[in-house]
Amino acid sequence: MNKIAIAIHGGAGPDSEHIKKNYEAYKKGLEDALNSGYKILEGGGSALDAVEAAVNSMEDNPLFNAGKGSALNAKAEVEMCAGIMDGRKVESGAVALIKNVKNPISLARAVMEKSEHLYLGDAGALAFAQKVGVELMPDAYFITEHAYEQFDEARKEEGTNIRYLGKEQIKKHSHGTVGAVALDKDGNLAAATSTGGTENKSQGRIGDSSMIGIGFYANNKTCAVSGTGDGEVMMHFVSAYEISCLMEYKGLSVTEACRFLIHEKSKGVEGDMGLIAVDAEGNIALEYKADRMHRAWRTNDADVVVKIYAE
Amino acid sequence: MNKIAIAIHGGAGPDSEHIKKNYEAYKKGLEDALNSGYKILEGGGSALDAVEAAVNSMEDNPLFNAGKGSALNAKAEVEMCAGIMDGRKVESGAVALIKNVKNPISLARAVMEKSEHLYLGDAGALAFAQKVGVELMPDAYFITEHAYEQFDEARKEEGTNIRYLGKEQIKKHSHGTVGAVALDKDGNLAAATSTGGTENKSQGRIGDSSMIGIGFYANNKTCAVSGTGDGEVMMHFVSAYEISCLMEYKGLSVTEACRFLIHEKSKGVEGDMGLIAVDAEGNIALEYKADRMHRAWRTNDADVVVKIYAE
Repeated sequence: MNKIAIAIHGGAGPDSEHIKKNYEAYKKGLEDALNSGYKILEGGGSALDAVEAAVNSMEDNPLFNAGKGSALNAKAEVEMCAGIMDGRKVESGAVALIKNVKNPISLARAVMEKSEHLYLGDAGALAFAQKVGVELMPDAYFITEHAYEQFDEARKEEGTNIRYLGKEQIKKHSHGTVGAVALDKDGNLAAATSTGGTENKSQGRIGDSSMIGIGFYANNKTCAVSGTGDGEVMMHFVSAYEISCLMEYKGLSVTEACRFLIHEKSKGVEGDMGLIAVDAEGNIALEYKADRMHRAWRTNDADVVVKIYAE
Repeated sequence: MNKIAIAIHGGAGPDSEHIKKNYEAYKKGLEDALNSGYKILEGGGSALDAVEAAVNSMEDNPLFNAGKGSALNAKAEVEMCAGIMDGRKVESGAVALIKNVKNPISLARAVMEKSEHLYLGDAGALAFAQKVGVELMPDAYFITEHAYEQFDEARKEEGTNIRYLGKEQIKKHSHGTVGAVALDKDGNLAAATSTGGTENKSQGRIGDSSMIGIGFYANNKTCAVSGTGDGEVMMHFVSAYEISCLMEYKGLSVTEACRFLIHEKSKGVEGDMGLIAVDAEGNIALEYKADRMHRAWRTNDADVVVKIYAE
């Protein structure tokens, strides 16, 4: 059988009591998500279907900051962003500031496949969601007690409004995003990233997860990439496309490219960064600088591995 | 005096009767915008101030599809996108789906300088605009008779809703964006891009003009770039950051990089593309594949040049 490979992440960032307390549940959630995607690849399905399935699984799991369980913005609302890319056609779809859509990554895929545009936001994206018939849920579905506690704590700690705070203070509250990259038996690559954004973020803050070339990128010629960490740092480096360029124009391997960006080029720039990537030979890279990156990966040559810390 | 340089564009795309009829007025508008920016550079001001001033001038001129004169979406509303980047700090600010803000590029700059986020959209961006006090205007200010005629014609020609049309049919109606790139006497680069989007676009369509690395990019190490043309094609190539990578990793000059992307790498991909760029030595590149690109440029070594067609 040809090589198949999948890697997923559930966010890179600071450690927390919540993560420690739910360590086993997070590992189980990562393994379940990985297997949802792997099963598709194993059955001969596409990388695109595999990354969507893996991300859907984490969007539905309230432990992760995407879909159900999303962080609340400064108005205690859930506003989600997501993007998906098909490495075969080098075509993408993305959605920003989405409410009420159960699986934002599936809406991003519908934008790619059924809209004449590639990037839709807010009310217009919701109208499109209704037209194509993706599943909608009431506001209350998305809000977990943990997300509200985090929101409440951030507000108490920092006064009335996080908008008046510096980047430093925001950072310690940002805690995740989910993503997946995959290679299927036909040699096609795909990437997907979905997020609830940062806790207590300003209303209207668009995350890097929905930005082509930053939070995600896929091209059969080079690699598929999904990013996490501080969105603003990821934007600074145009991180996902940077990996592809380092491979295409500098001849680096996928692992060398991820290491170069995360541990060399970004030296001196503060902020958490995390990248997962896979190339057309099924080589997987998972690199981060942060306390932890929730991650898991599997190929047809090796069994599943699930990690949260350096361990 | 050190080298100073500025280049601007007023969109690349299909030719039209409207452009032919207003040929002289367009040239005057480009020259005025160029001079607004050039005056600042000549007086020792920053590239950032220069690109903002040049774009403000085109946003205020109803002939261009940005600010006043913006294209109407499928609901006959104006929804604007803009992004700005400071090559010195490699820092950006952007806004998407903006209504009522007279100068979207100035709001993007406020996001860069006064928000802890880098990219804001819709209602949240408007709340931020009110907080920082950028100038707001009523809906009616933005709508020109020409924009309404174009909207009306597109609707009549294509039935009730352009959302059900293919990319081919959309294309002939897309007609512009404005942008500027500059080098100041201190060797700093900046880029800015602002748009009303495509005519009769779906509500919520986010344009490449607001996407870091696609519609704009600036880094003192390489170049400042502003893009125009079919947003979806520009996204496919992550166009602005691509120019920077071709320079950084492949050693191409700014002109070689723009030519390579527009005339070689994108061969076989349909759609209009246009790029203006300047490097740290003040070399200016203006490349496009389309019927026309409204453009102008000037350095302290050479007088102003204004062009619309190949001429």
